[in-house]
Amino acid sequence: MAKAVFYHAGCSVCVDAEQAILPYLDRTKTDVETIHFAQHPDKLDEAEKLGVKSVPALVLNGTVYHINFGASMADVRKAVGK
Amino acid sequence: MAKAVFYHAGCSVCVDAEQAILPYLDRTKTDVETIHFAQHPDKLDEAEKLGVKSVPALVLNGTVYHINFGASMADVRKAVGK
Repeated sequence: MAKAVFYHAGCSVCVDAEQAILPYLDRTKTDVETIHFAQHPDKLDEAEKLGVKSVPALVLNGTVYHINFGASMADVRKAVGK
Repeated sequence: MAKAVFYHAGCSVCVDAEQAILPYLDRTKTDVETIHFAQHPDKLDEAEKLGVKSVPALVLNGTVYHINFGASMADVRKAVGK
């Protein structure tokens, strides 16, 4: 089973990607977890270590896929006060 | 049934995204077509009209999702001589 983590910061580009793409991932092949940085600012370091530079980002089997551009991680940190 | 078109230019980022992401799209919900610009340079105009600015890009239900960055469309045009 593949592991997919979708990193979300509440930005409109994030919301669009979440609603438009995640429903099309095959849940028989991958577990999908969505992490909202506003609710889980403790995940910022983990995401950056994985290579996440902007949101929205989908980390699939450990590889980061930045999907369009909503906000930089620096701006996400400012927004959540971390 | 949703329509997904994956635009590919043979770049390593394109190959990675193709191999890593497309297998996880739910084929019971979406038809997936892959277009290689090297083989179909006639699709360049169509892609740009849809809003594709770089490859790899996934157009899902008409909305463009640029996935990481492999090459600009200008560079793709140079590469295929169009």
